[in-house]
Amino acid sequence: MIIVLKKKATERQIQHIVAAVHGWKLKVNISRGTERTVIGLIGDERIIRSKPLDMFPGVESVLSVLKPYKLAAAEGHPERTRIQLPPVHRGGRPVVIGGPQVVVMAGPCAIESRALLFDLGRRVQQAGGRILRAGAFKPRTSPYSFQGLGVEGLRYLAEVRAELGLHVITEVMDTRDVELVAGVADVLQVGARNMQNFNLLKALGRLRKPVMIKRGLANTLEELLMSAEYVLSEGNHDVLLCERGIRTFEPLTRNTLDLSAVPVLQRESHLPVIVDPSHGTGHWDLVVPMARAAVAAGADGIMVEIHPHPAEALSDGSQALLPKNFVKMMQALRTVARALGRNV
Amino acid sequence: MIIVLKKKATERQIQHIVAAVHGWKLKVNISRGTERTVIGLIGDERIIRSKPLDMFPGVESVLSVLKPYKLAAAEGHPERTRIQLPPVHRGGRPVVIGGPQVVVMAGPCAIESRALLFDLGRRVQQAGGRILRAGAFKPRTSPYSFQGLGVEGLRYLAEVRAELGLHVITEVMDTRDVELVAGVADVLQVGARNMQNFNLLKALGRLRKPVMIKRGLANTLEELLMSAEYVLSEGNHDVLLCERGIRTFEPLTRNTLDLSAVPVLQRESHLPVIVDPSHGTGHWDLVVPMARAAVAAGADGIMVEIHPHPAEALSDGSQALLPKNFVKMMQALRTVARALGRNV
Amino acid sequence: MIIVLKKKATERQIQHIVAAVHGWKLKVNISRGTERTVIGLIGDERIIRSKPLDMFPGVESVLSVLKPYKLAAAEGHPERTRIQLPPVHRGGRPVVIGGPQVVVMAGPCAIESRALLFDLGRRVQQAGGRILRAGAFKPRTSPYSFQGLGVEGLRYLAEVRAELGLHVITEVMDTRDVELVAGVADVLQVGARNMQNFNLLKALGRLRKPVMIKRGLANTLEELLMSAEYVLSEGNHDVLLCERGIRTFEPLTRNTLDLSAVPVLQRESHLPVIVDPSHGTGHWDLVVPMARAAVAAGADGIMVEIHPHPAEALSDGSQALLPKNFVKMMQALRTVARALGRNV
Amino acid sequence: MIIVLKKKATERQIQHIVAAVHGWKLKVNISRGTERTVIGLIGDERIIRSKPLDMFPGVESVLSVLKPYKLAAAEGHPERTRIQLPPVHRGGRPVVIGGPQVVVMAGPCAIESRALLFDLGRRVQQAGGRILRAGAFKPRTSPYSFQGLGVEGLRYLAEVRAELGLHVITEVMDTRDVELVAGVADVLQVGARNMQNFNLLKALGRLRKPVMIKRGLANTLEELLMSAEYVLSEGNHDVLLCERGIRTFEPLTRNTLDLSAVPVLQRESHLPVIVDPSHGTGHWDLVVPMARAAVAAGADGIMVEIHPHPAEALSDGSQALLPKNFVKMMQALRTVARALGRNV
Repeated sequence: MIIVLKKKATERQIQHIVAAVHGWKLKVNISRGTERTVIGLIGDERIIRSKPLDMFPGVESVLSVLKPYKLAAAEGHPERTRIQLPPVHRGGRPVVIGGPQVVVMAGPCAIESRALLFDLGRRVQQAGGRILRAGAFKPRTSPYSFQGLGVEGLRYLAEVRAELGLHVITEVMDTRDVELVAGVADVLQVGARNMQNFNLLKALGRLRKPVMIKRGLANTLEELLMSAEYVLSEGNHDVLLCERGIRTFEPLTRNTLDLSAVPVLQRESHLPVIVDPSHGTGHWDLVVPMARAAVAAGADGIMVEIHPHPAEALSDGSQALLPKNFVKMMQALRTVARALGRNV
Repeated sequence: MIIVLKKKATERQIQHIVAAVHGWKLKVNISRGTERTVIGLIGDERIIRSKPLDMFPGVESVLSVLKPYKLAAAEGHPERTRIQLPPVHRGGRPVVIGGPQVVVMAGPCAIESRALLFDLGRRVQQAGGRILRAGAFKPRTSPYSFQGLGVEGLRYLAEVRAELGLHVITEVMDTRDVELVAGVADVLQVGARNMQNFNLLKALGRLRKPVMIKRGLANTLEELLMSAEYVLSEGNHDVLLCERGIRTFEPLTRNTLDLSAVPVLQRESHLPVIVDPSHGTGHWDLVVPMARAAVAAGADGIMVEIHPHPAEALSDGSQALLPKNFVKMMQALRTVARALGRNV
Repeated sequence: MIIVLKKKATERQIQHIVAAVHGWKLKVNISRGTERTVIGLIGDERIIRSKPLDMFPGVESVLSVLKPYKLAAAEGHPERTRIQLPPVHRGGRPVVIGGPQVVVMAGPCAIESRALLFDLGRRVQQAGGRILRAGAFKPRTSPYSFQGLGVEGLRYLAEVRAELGLHVITEVMDTRDVELVAGVADVLQVGARNMQNFNLLKALGRLRKPVMIKRGLANTLEELLMSAEYVLSEGNHDVLLCERGIRTFEPLTRNTLDLSAVPVLQRESHLPVIVDPSHGTGHWDLVVPMARAAVAAGADGIMVEIHPHPAEALSDGSQALLPKNFVKMMQALRTVARALGRNV
Repeated sequence: MIIVLKKKATERQIQHIVAAVHGWKLKVNISRGTERTVIGLIGDERIIRSKPLDMFPGVESVLSVLKPYKLAAAEGHPERTRIQLPPVHRGGRPVVIGGPQVVVMAGPCAIESRALLFDLGRRVQQAGGRILRAGAFKPRTSPYSFQGLGVEGLRYLAEVRAELGLHVITEVMDTRDVELVAGVADVLQVGARNMQNFNLLKALGRLRKPVMIKRGLANTLEELLMSAEYVLSEGNHDVLLCERGIRTFEPLTRNTLDLSAVPVLQRESHLPVIVDPSHGTGHWDLVVPMARAAVAAGADGIMVEIHPHPAEALSDGSQALLPKNFVKMMQALRTVARALGRNV
């Protein structure tokens, strides 16, 4: 931590700050420049990060030197995290996220019926998708919109999983549902609107199942890593980060998919990075080019929505790929992944 | 709802859409222009708002005519909502929010100790503040920051309330805590990060206690009204809206306080509007001018943070007013309110 | 400037940086912490601000200590700048911006005709407005929109100014027009889209007429001050700063008026701050409450658009006040200004 | 154009609007719904787009049906525009932008010296870059930063172009310099800060040389197309669009590169789309993955900055690739382009 003093800071103010810093068991380095005196704090600044040092008399500004996250940081973790989902059935195939394979997760936005879920589960599997995505609990902006099948939906998901031997990911929205969802899902998803639902993150940190955290619409990448830190600090090491678009002023896309999040997160952290171009763009015709771009940027996985009759989907139909376009996307992703020395 | 067709939409595509609309028990008005054919839907469009009409072949875009909220809308509610908090003790004074008085809510960001809370409660009361604000459950970006005293903090809050006869507002972060918090608070606060925690909103909608919803960092005013709609549609009519700054690219303030939210929300809705200049700016020296501006814009209430020793506050010290500056602020707000024919 | 080194930075990398810094005639202070070594640069960092110090091997990040602007800074300028517009006619009244009076600038968005300009000029004057605003050169998003009367409009402006003895402000968009506009206007306005048209700023810096710079839609307050610095550094000391709304995700207002810009700019700089609630909101019914709020926040002036028949205005009619509403606004501003010890 | 009336709009207000619309030689279609009456305007709405129809009594909102651009629109232009740069020397190679080849433009941010420019020009050419980029006029946030070599820089650029037979692109910032720059450059670049410098756009529209317009930091894609429309409507048909990042709240990248702009612009317009990952990210280590992603998204060209000694660059060194990394990037882009059936 660096404390920059005001030009007119007095010697007494400096000594007051130094005494406080010593009180926190940290050392100081004082640099008296021509225009400003600067006090450097020596020691682990994390213990004082939330102290309002700028409120001390004579202080102009405070600059951080260390990152606020530790367990999520690439520094000190020379190897990238690989998250292994054990096979659904004995003798089945595991899924490894964060390795050479770009893992594709696909399925309907919401679980609408048992039949639809089975149909789409088979299509995902046949096209080479590794994980079925489908929402039982749906966060909807309007109380008048379809709110998901809830527990009934979870049951269908468990059935599809068992019958097809296909891994599944689904969202958990409420601390009260954590055990329930963990009983079915191979990966539990935290939605963008819950990225800073800290009680939910803590509860998930106590599980021993992988958690995928979606970036909030207005959240920085550092905040996303801090949300991962909540889960990691409770002892759950299997965290996936997901870029799904941020909110900007541009109206032609539902969100602005920030693909630079992929190389930035991979530089800052050891956790795998997934990209969701369906929510990231909001329009099915933009999903394929942006999925290709995500793989080219180095994403460890792609999550997309598909539906056999998008015009009749109960939620987010505009961004759903037809199954036939999903098949084409898989082919395109394979070609791009191969160009980068990876596979799908 | 207005469906704009592509220039090359065929007659068959038009008939397909018309048949679908008729299937939803709505009527159509077809307008064949020189460049575009446009289909107007006649009837309550809310029932089809979430249908992805843009996925029908031949459709270029879909435009909404009606607002998505109904209970929160000013239309159909000629009188503005006044929320009355009954007196804490028999014979005490009620607080009315949404009337001629600009209600000031003030207190520490977090409940740090029983003594501090009593001290600040008395100061708020003496200076003319009507409601004590103080957080027992604290949403913090970092798992390593002070997370609030929790249940112990709630207990202190109940004691201060009883002893001083002062109304209190505090945040509820978790569906599991709703009953607990409702047992103490006169108003339950939904924090910005939980504005779209829909399960929490539904649970609060089943209470019969006022709820204040803070606007999320990346949420539009329409979305804020939709979150209010969640509470209202469960039967709880006492909802307050709170502007507390949105996230923009400007780094010199913690958030960008969007004061135009005040007249916009008052035009669109009948619910009272509160402004929080502490979170809205993040710096104590900006709080007073922005509180003045909020009153001048027509706010029904102001929420600010105060602390006797901001440099030692366990959270958000940078934005806390010293008690003496809070007293000065109250004087300034009184003058401005009077200029508008209101009081504080 | 503070250079934070990577954890694994070598002694050789440190010496390489120190040598470079010495080469720029600056001194260093090296602080070896437990987690990071930090190099402080002693001397005027402005000379090396644009050097990419983060490109030196071993550097993790670079933090600035000093503000990048000097002439625009409050520091070193204990007195706030007052800009005096000499009377239009001998014996007339000067206008002082930055003093106790809140100066109101009003008029049509565009000069549409000589008659309209005279009519509105008289109304502004009668209601107590001090400066007539009116655009001869109009920046329009579409090439098919009315582009302003240009030189003809300027001539009308000169005539109104002379006949009514009323000061005028108008926009200059092109370096080629600077002399022309300076021949008529008492204050030259740089529009938001030209805030970083640096050649235009330099040309205006060579004038000896006041310049008002509007904040760009995506520009930080620091960048606004840097644009002021362009004018100041060429020798023109009479610069006004204008907040007129920034672009955010909120669609119910044309822009998001950032009123916290007023106290922030007044803390950082000695230059007067004007607020334009017409462009800041885009809707006439929001202009009056936001103008009141701007005065309450401490603005030194207000700029609004008025039109006798907004539905027929050739540009920006939606945000124009009717003359009768302008009169009401002036009354409201007087009351609020008085509450703050100022006048209008 | 669709005019949505207020619930309580009177018959007289409706007739008033109808009369006005008829006065503009347009027809109306009136649809009386259960909750709202809606008036559809039949005819070319572009002529009334800037009329403030929402100011008519009884109007709630106004919705546009047609896009505001016509010449830039894909509709009516079944073939995508290919821009051909004739060979520099007789018998040399032309460059075609918008065809199967992904055209790489590379070079230093600023022209710093004749020697450096020759050196980098040769490296670009050898690595397979088709166009040399280099700035003679530099828009800089600070008046104290290096402002470019100006006319001297242009002279060096002309010499490199002639000697190497390499096409060049350079920025023009001022209407007064258009002829001068057009005398040297094969493509004239409009910088992000000048995207809405409409006089500059008009002047460039009168040239018969290709113009590349960079998206402004806060500009929508529709506004970018409107700026293209300015150039096109003056008769210059050779316009390139360039995505270079928009301003958001994320601090870890200089800007947020909006790659979805590529498929959106290609759907809405027939003009070629270039991506600049150097300005789009601001850090050299992010340039290569984002360049790959841009090609995968379908970009028609890539523009990057290179420098042999980034730590000594006079501007934007942090985002410059070393020549050796540029060579690696070219190899990566070739592989990705090939996977999409294109070449570099």
